[in-house]
Amino acid sequence: MRDDGPTADLPLGSTTPRLAFFSDGVFAIAITLIVLEIPLPADAESDLLGALADEWSSYLAYAVSFSTIGALWLGHTAITGQLGRVTSVFVRLNLLLLFFVAFLPYPTRLLTEYVGEDEAEKVSTTVYGLNLLVAWSLMSVLWRYAVRADLLDADAREQDVWLLTQRLTPGLGGYVALIALGIFLPVVAVVGYFAIALFFILPFGSIRLSPRRDRDRGASRNR
Amino acid sequence: MRDDGPTADLPLGSTTPRLAFFSDGVFAIAITLIVLEIPLPADAESDLLGALADEWSSYLAYAVSFSTIGALWLGHTAITGQLGRVTSVFVRLNLLLLFFVAFLPYPTRLLTEYVGEDEAEKVSTTVYGLNLLVAWSLMSVLWRYAVRADLLDADAREQDVWLLTQRLTPGLGGYVALIALGIFLPVVAVVGYFAIALFFILPFGSIRLSPRRDRDRGASRNR
Amino acid sequence: MRDDGPTADLPLGSTTPRLAFFSDGVFAIAITLIVLEIPLPADAESDLLGALADEWSSYLAYAVSFSTIGALWLGHTAITGQLGRVTSVFVRLNLLLLFFVAFLPYPTRLLTEYVGEDEAEKVSTTVYGLNLLVAWSLMSVLWRYAVRADLLDADAREQDVWLLTQRLTPGLGGYVALIALGIFLPVVAVVGYFAIALFFILPFGSIRLSPRRDRDRGASRNR
Amino acid sequence: MRDDGPTADLPLGSTTPRLAFFSDGVFAIAITLIVLEIPLPADAESDLLGALADEWSSYLAYAVSFSTIGALWLGHTAITGQLGRVTSVFVRLNLLLLFFVAFLPYPTRLLTEYVGEDEAEKVSTTVYGLNLLVAWSLMSVLWRYAVRADLLDADAREQDVWLLTQRLTPGLGGYVALIALGIFLPVVAVVGYFAIALFFILPFGSIRLSPRRDRDRGASRNR
Repeated sequence: MRDDGPTADLPLGSTTPRLAFFSDGVFAIAITLIVLEIPLPADAESDLLGALADEWSSYLAYAVSFSTIGALWLGHTAITGQLGRVTSVFVRLNLLLLFFVAFLPYPTRLLTEYVGEDEAEKVSTTVYGLNLLVAWSLMSVLWRYAVRADLLDADAREQDVWLLTQRLTPGLGGYVALIALGIFLPVVAVVGYFAIALFFILPFGSIRLSPRRDRDRGASRNR
Repeated sequence: MRDDGPTADLPLGSTTPRLAFFSDGVFAIAITLIVLEIPLPADAESDLLGALADEWSSYLAYAVSFSTIGALWLGHTAITGQLGRVTSVFVRLNLLLLFFVAFLPYPTRLLTEYVGEDEAEKVSTTVYGLNLLVAWSLMSVLWRYAVRADLLDADAREQDVWLLTQRLTPGLGGYVALIALGIFLPVVAVVGYFAIALFFILPFGSIRLSPRRDRDRGASRNR
Repeated sequence: MRDDGPTADLPLGSTTPRLAFFSDGVFAIAITLIVLEIPLPADAESDLLGALADEWSSYLAYAVSFSTIGALWLGHTAITGQLGRVTSVFVRLNLLLLFFVAFLPYPTRLLTEYVGEDEAEKVSTTVYGLNLLVAWSLMSVLWRYAVRADLLDADAREQDVWLLTQRLTPGLGGYVALIALGIFLPVVAVVGYFAIALFFILPFGSIRLSPRRDRDRGASRNR
Repeated sequence: MRDDGPTADLPLGSTTPRLAFFSDGVFAIAITLIVLEIPLPADAESDLLGALADEWSSYLAYAVSFSTIGALWLGHTAITGQLGRVTSVFVRLNLLLLFFVAFLPYPTRLLTEYVGEDEAEKVSTTVYGLNLLVAWSLMSVLWRYAVRADLLDADAREQDVWLLTQRLTPGLGGYVALIALGIFLPVVAVVGYFAIALFFILPFGSIRLSPRRDRDRGASRNR
């Protein structure tokens, strides 16, 4: 119990799996709820195909939000997969991150509603970008805190830790740049948000499974 | 099987994990659904930024509901983390608690709808506060029942049990006071509800992980 | 692999936990979604308290649906807690049961919409009752199938099996009677549906935990 | 770590259970959300029974979407039940599959809205069919990738692998044919989509539980 400090707080029994579980639940629900934000096209009886095509911005918003939540979930899985224990601070930071993950359907609705409406389009793109920036910043803070507070599993490899730190950082600069760009070219910014999510999701090289898995598999072979 | 009484009831196999699982699901869904209660601002094409700013009460309602459900989840995790077994009474009390957790999106919607409308604002704030009071009271009842019915894990430490009892109580008085205040100053009451949730969530000192985790980790090191 | 029959079908790896997990997810989501079916009262600015009181039927519908899904979840947990294995037939029957669990929010919406509107009230009450009857019948079929197909855990006690069979049956007759009654007295029928759910949920005597838990706890003590 | 390639990517700790968990969550939420897409019948006060009957296409859409997501979940459970490990590519393919599973409520809403409206009916049936085709194709790709990349559990039996490959293929041809047919006879196509889902769900012969379960049960008996 290295840095758990004074015991003046709630005991949390076997928190790690419950935390991963609850977080996965929020990620899964948020990623599935955003489809409800795509509106039915108006006056579409006579030409539904055209009306659906006019809704392209809604599909783009769905794709960006789905990819981003998917990427955040991947990052969260990568982080919690390296943990050996959690502290109360980690649990609270995690709740704060989920606050902005669960909020994302709202800016998504703004985007589906106001793309193509000039001023409103710029405002909604900016709000959307800020939400993404805050969520990713908190993800990065969560990871840095886990490293500093020595929460990692004893078997976590330095190389993996370094890689995860590397991957979580560059998107933040990208978001800042795109939020600024979005004031002038909102749709370009949204496409940029999509690109960042895909950049995080798509494997450049492929993903190393965690050392813990290797260990487990080795163990099960030696049994 | 100390107090399970006569066997005239349903057998419930390995209930504890299913109970934690089902409860976590309800908490995760409720905390993610409340975002759907934030309405799109009306007539916002020309000045979306101003229209969004006018929706401040909706964001406040989202923040309060998210924080409260998050705090309730933390409390629930802390309680179930100390359990060694459950009884039928515990399962039913838990369902009753979830009844009011799952209901919270409705008062949240009332709040986003009626803040700023005088009489309606007071009514919706009171309904909202009552829901919070009932949910926390049930949480407290659940914990007291678990202690009295001797459901705690044999390894639960007296100190942790005492701390949990301490933390679950004071909010109740706060809710009663704020509900009364809300009849005159509804927005202040809502801010107060937010403060109680944060007071429960924010670590004063940091959270002690449960003895069970210590034990497990010790065990895995000694393996 | 006693009655798994010819191997001309899909292999399902370690299905039991996934099945319980997926089912718990559907129960948890359905029980949390029904709150979305409670409508905001119309024209409520001037007298929200009165308008909310006029919505009593919506709260009743929420309470009945929540209780019924809660009772169904309890029954499902009791059944799966006795299982030692599942067959393909069990998995399919379970999906059919979930079909009607996941559908329940729709009749709930009909109820909140049409109570107090004479003809429509009777139709929606009947539809609602039929949904409950079908769901509970499938629950009963699921259990009887599990017993006949010899899916129970070797440690399941005869007494528990008998009790579960006893508890799952009587509600069905009650639903049939109430559906008939609902053609004349719809609100009374809804109250009756509530009573059946509570009758299943409330402990008469208290619930015996399953033998498996006893065994596990014994085992952990002997370790 | 046979084909994990260069280690230039995120470490993912103990990914398999989290992946199954997250995926089950998305399946469970999507299958429960579609009920929200069934609209209340319009002008139904005087003849709710007739109005509900007029909504037959909505119930059909619910049944088809529920069955299809159920079938996809069965397939996904069968696939992941055979896995011994996952790679980054598998995780990404899985996210892509979930993209189209989570999207399905939208075409379902199009279907409930536009069946019976001639042109729009054809468009929405085609969009719906394309969504199903893409989802099943990705499921098939996921399985083929798992086999080729040697992700299967060492105990997976050749026969089971062959069976799963067999079952995942034929539906794809059926979807292509029905999408073409749907341009002329949209309702027939929707009934066909229902048939394919049932064909996948209903047991022809019964399902072999996976070898892993046999092994586990054998192990627990020998303990």
